[in-house]
Amino acid sequence: MEEIATEKEAEESHRQDSVSLLTFILLLTLTILTIWLFKHRRVRFLHETGLAMIYGLIVGVILRYGIPATSGHDKSLSCSQEDRPFSTLLVNVSGKFFEYTLKGEISPGKINNVEQNDMLRKVTFDPEVFFNILLPPIIFHAGYSLKKRHFFRNLGSILAYAFLGTAVSCFIIGNLMYGVVKLMKLVGQLSDKFYYTDCLLFGAIISATDPVTVLAIFNELHADVDLYALLFGESVLNDAVAIVLSSSIVAYQPTGLNTHAFDAAAFFKSVGVFLGIFSGSFAMGAVTGVVTALVTKFTKLHCFPLLETALFFLMSWSTFLLAEACGFTGVVAVLFCGITQAHYTYNNLSVESRSRTKQLFEVLHFLAENFIFSYMGLALFTFQKHIFSPIFIIGAFIAIFLGRAAHIYPLSFFLNLGRRHKIGWNFQHMMMFSGLRGAMAFALAIRDTATYSHQMMFSTTLLIVFFTVWIIGGGTTPMLSWLNIRVGVQDPSEDDLNETRWRVGVDPDQDPPPSNDSFQVLQGDGPDAARGNRTKQESAWIFRLWYSFDHNYLKPILTHSGPPLTTTLPAWCGLLARCLTSPQVYENQEQLRDEDSDFILNDGDLTLTYGDSTITANGSSGSHTATTSLEGRRTKSSSEEALERDLGMGDHEVSSRGTRLVFPLEDNA
Amino acid sequence: MEEIATEKEAEESHRQDSVSLLTFILLLTLTILTIWLFKHRRVRFLHETGLAMIYGLIVGVILRYGIPATSGHDKSLSCSQEDRPFSTLLVNVSGKFFEYTLKGEISPGKINNVEQNDMLRKVTFDPEVFFNILLPPIIFHAGYSLKKRHFFRNLGSILAYAFLGTAVSCFIIGNLMYGVVKLMKLVGQLSDKFYYTDCLLFGAIISATDPVTVLAIFNELHADVDLYALLFGESVLNDAVAIVLSSSIVAYQPTGLNTHAFDAAAFFKSVGVFLGIFSGSFAMGAVTGVVTALVTKFTKLHCFPLLETALFFLMSWSTFLLAEACGFTGVVAVLFCGITQAHYTYNNLSVESRSRTKQLFEVLHFLAENFIFSYMGLALFTFQKHIFSPIFIIGAFIAIFLGRAAHIYPLSFFLNLGRRHKIGWNFQHMMMFSGLRGAMAFALAIRDTATYSHQMMFSTTLLIVFFTVWIIGGGTTPMLSWLNIRVGVQDPSEDDLNETRWRVGVDPDQDPPPSNDSFQVLQGDGPDAARGNRTKQESAWIFRLWYSFDHNYLKPILTHSGPPLTTTLPAWCGLLARCLTSPQVYENQEQLRDEDSDFILNDGDLTLTYGDSTITANGSSGSHTATTSLEGRRTKSSSEEALERDLGMGDHEVSSRGTRLVFPLEDNA
Repeated sequence: MEEIATEKEAEESHRQDSVSLLTFILLLTLTILTIWLFKHRRVRFLHETGLAMIYGLIVGVILRYGIPATSGHDKSLSCSQEDRPFSTLLVNVSGKFFEYTLKGEISPGKINNVEQNDMLRKVTFDPEVFFNILLPPIIFHAGYSLKKRHFFRNLGSILAYAFLGTAVSCFIIGNLMYGVVKLMKLVGQLSDKFYYTDCLLFGAIISATDPVTVLAIFNELHADVDLYALLFGESVLNDAVAIVLSSSIVAYQPTGLNTHAFDAAAFFKSVGVFLGIFSGSFAMGAVTGVVTALVTKFTKLHCFPLLETALFFLMSWSTFLLAEACGFTGVVAVLFCGITQAHYTYNNLSVESRSRTKQLFEVLHFLAENFIFSYMGLALFTFQKHIFSPIFIIGAFIAIFLGRAAHIYPLSFFLNLGRRHKIGWNFQHMMMFSGLRGAMAFALAIRDTATYSHQMMFSTTLLIVFFTVWIIGGGTTPMLSWLNIRVGVQDPSEDDLNETRWRVGVDPDQDPPPSNDSFQVLQGDGPDAARGNRTKQESAWIFRLWYSFDHNYLKPILTHSGPPLTTTLPAWCGLLARCLTSPQVYENQEQLRDEDSDFILNDGDLTLTYGDSTITANGSSGSHTATTSLEGRRTKSSSEEALERDLGMGDHEVSSRGTRLVFPLEDNA
Repeated sequence: MEEIATEKEAEESHRQDSVSLLTFILLLTLTILTIWLFKHRRVRFLHETGLAMIYGLIVGVILRYGIPATSGHDKSLSCSQEDRPFSTLLVNVSGKFFEYTLKGEISPGKINNVEQNDMLRKVTFDPEVFFNILLPPIIFHAGYSLKKRHFFRNLGSILAYAFLGTAVSCFIIGNLMYGVVKLMKLVGQLSDKFYYTDCLLFGAIISATDPVTVLAIFNELHADVDLYALLFGESVLNDAVAIVLSSSIVAYQPTGLNTHAFDAAAFFKSVGVFLGIFSGSFAMGAVTGVVTALVTKFTKLHCFPLLETALFFLMSWSTFLLAEACGFTGVVAVLFCGITQAHYTYNNLSVESRSRTKQLFEVLHFLAENFIFSYMGLALFTFQKHIFSPIFIIGAFIAIFLGRAAHIYPLSFFLNLGRRHKIGWNFQHMMMFSGLRGAMAFALAIRDTATYSHQMMFSTTLLIVFFTVWIIGGGTTPMLSWLNIRVGVQDPSEDDLNETRWRVGVDPDQDPPPSNDSFQVLQGDGPDAARGNRTKQESAWIFRLWYSFDHNYLKPILTHSGPPLTTTLPAWCGLLARCLTSPQVYENQEQLRDEDSDFILNDGDLTLTYGDSTITANGSSGSHTATTSLEGRRTKSSSEEALERDLGMGDHEVSSRGTRLVFPLEDNA
């Protein structure tokens, strides 16, 4: 009889699990249908993620107030233990032994709350689910769909924004929040401990930007690609930086017990932890990417797209697990794995596998992202330990505003000193404006909600995410026009049909046929080809160095494209070079280089001008410009020419649609 | 300090989780690479699932004997409790409260074994993982890729094999095993209780056939489609029957305590449970399929393939959860959902979504299946509670042989009485031979391994799966030629490239252009069209009834194809008919009917004969036959003609490849 009762209980628990998952699935289904309706009717003020949150909120309210609290039949028995808690527990129930596993600590005040309604408990997921299941596909997809050409062209600036920017933002927000906490203590609004390290952790958590809404609108409106690359690259890398930063802040433990004051040794240890985790994760991601590239290159797996896709999926997933197993950060490793896979492995895949892998990760990303956002909506009402403190929340909003301002404007100023191809004021304002917080900030905040300070941080983060996604997401279109960032005009019917494709960056299938008459227009050098030359020389020296190494050695080793290794490697490693170079390289050397340079599909529809006067001021026709720049190119050295050609590959479509790009940025400098 | 220690422990546990998952991923990666090698070198004696098991075995041996047993630092504390076990437990550790959740009962003898190596424990999954995560995509894919035309043509026989056959097999195996158990008790080999219901449960578990290996070889060799349909249909439905049967046997609890004797009331209750669960699951699956079809029909979601694919995925998954939440069987519901989705929703999807959904579920199915099989290999060494009893094992092998023989031959005999288009001896032998046991039997057996009898059943099931997959899987090709089941000869290079595509049945994208000169050849009626007519009339009356209802009402309501409802529904529901009929129907009525009839791609390459004499005996050329049968068709009534046309749609490709099908079956009758 006891057995049957236990069985019944387990069955009931399983049934409730199913119902709670079903709730989320119905939520997502509803979101999808509404998204369709919005896209169908061209509603742009609310993004799908914002929508998912609203539906989540509604369901949260229903679960919270609509279902009567049941007096949980799994009421618990307390038994005292002398030592620290064990991870498993054997319990002797009238001669039978049952195994229990540790779930977590419960704060004493909440013990009576255990008797709340079951459904509310069931819809609360283990926070690690976000890190181990939902974030990896989102981050991998970001890496895999990175628009490489523009990313690498702006590599210096993106790295500066992501590393320096996030660090600056983290410290400024952390210090400001420490001030707020001090103020709260003065006013008597603080009922428990809130250390300086907690404030710094909050800074790290909230520095992870996620402009998914803004970028979706950029894609839809075909806004400027360089701005897109800056925003996207910054937000992707800054997620990685924020995770690692928060881990190192958690690792910052001063030697003296209970002193949360500054300790130089601990500080440097934290910096070491940061560098170690970051570089380790980076290496893991790159290595598995490279291994996948080698496997797909040297086997004829491309005859079996199913096997190839499965292998690709497994290898990409193994990066995550490998990094986690080695104590690094899986999410960061997955990001770099995605970038490596897109850069090398993608070239080795069969045409079918290319679309399969893209579509697979697109679907996974879509589902995971909408799930997280609807969970956020739900969490506002179903999470048990919310602490909303008005002073802290207002302080946090001011702090994130100041923190973002303090990293965008000064960094842009310093970057512009080095860049010829300046980041204009309107771009800086747009970047400032696009500091949305999303899935990553939420996942970081929910990871640890054990203490008072962490609970307050979590509640505040949730509100910040809601506010930024709804307000900023809705304000993107007006902001773009207000800042005079002109967007491409295009055929509305095409918009609908290709929309989802645009979200995937690496898609050589859809390249328009190359037209060679207007290279270089995109570089913003207009009639002055020499200036364009300088632009590239100075702003992308990291890229230039990397590019030649990548083009001459890595690409030929890892893919079927690039120049044969026999020509690039010194003569004494001839045998090795012959082994590593695939026979296709010799045949398809020219042909394959096309695939090498990835295109951004919405380049073509893009026009950017700083008022109409700019266009007339330059006054030259598109074809004239093209001729000039082509002449300019012929005078360059041959190695530069190869780079130019590769860079230019993607630009032809600009002219093929008959629009001209004139960057007004230098007029401001 | 305590907190840090707990944290460290949790971290270590997470690290080990990652390592164990990584082990499986590397196993799968290795399997994929070896599969590629095998396919590349045309090795057919070992299927990928057999391979996955071998690799699993190797890793199992390493984990078992290669890693030194650690004396688990999570050694457990026992504390006595007076009552039955609770599902959660609060433990007070020096003032702090920790929550523990019940994991399961541990048999007293195993308590000392807790100190085994951690890795071994980590690679042991919760058995419900198989039912809730791994089986659903496999079963859904089976339903979604069902070759509908041949399935429905043989519907009567398939239902008979699946329902009657599985029941017969279950009871025969159960009774035989009860005899074996009695014998064991006599010899003194039985050390614990083994009831009659346990034997019946074993019968149900082991009656779930999974001829995935055989079918893969059929696909590769392009063996007979009707035999394929019989085998595939039987095994798919029989999985469903076996699950529900095992649930009803578990539900069979005689009123008197501890009496495992026969009880009429309990028996009829079990039959009621069987019918209730089966029809409930069927209804759930069909309903969500229909809802998806309606949603995809009446929204313009097909403009956004990503949204459409995501919706399709979520709706299909929700079937599973809905059924589980209502107390039905999710896996069975998912099967019927897959069939409904393939039959209706598939027609409403955009071309991109069709390939996306197929590819998505193909990848999921592939990964899940290989994971289960490699886990099986692993489980032979890592599972802690194996009980291998030689008598029981030998008895089980004999019982499954007799059980399969007792359902295939008598049922085929009775079916042949009703069928004109007989199931030949060679087909019967092949079906007898193809009684492999696979993922479903394993998942059913591992679900409950708490008692002595269940542990013995699990160990035996594992051995049966190994034996049948390796021996029968390897023997399929010789068996086919020995039984004179001729297979299609085809271009080897084509084989490689299209292989994976063939596994997906519903693929109108790849239809060859229709050629109208030889309908009806496949029906095996050769020069005698009237006989062909009779064949269909008599053997498929269920199908015929169903077909007209489906064609006239369901298809027009749920998809864009079929005749307009305004013509098929009575006049008084004219308004409703106009609302439900999509405008495309009127325009594309003729054109869309093509999509309606699904093709089996390997039809075309298939030839079947019972010795060469059959071909010469018929002696007519393909085109002559075609002409005759076409003439025969013109004399038929118009309603039959529509059915004929729809049925014939798929056949044209037979002639387009220039082969002729002659069924020799009637020569034996």
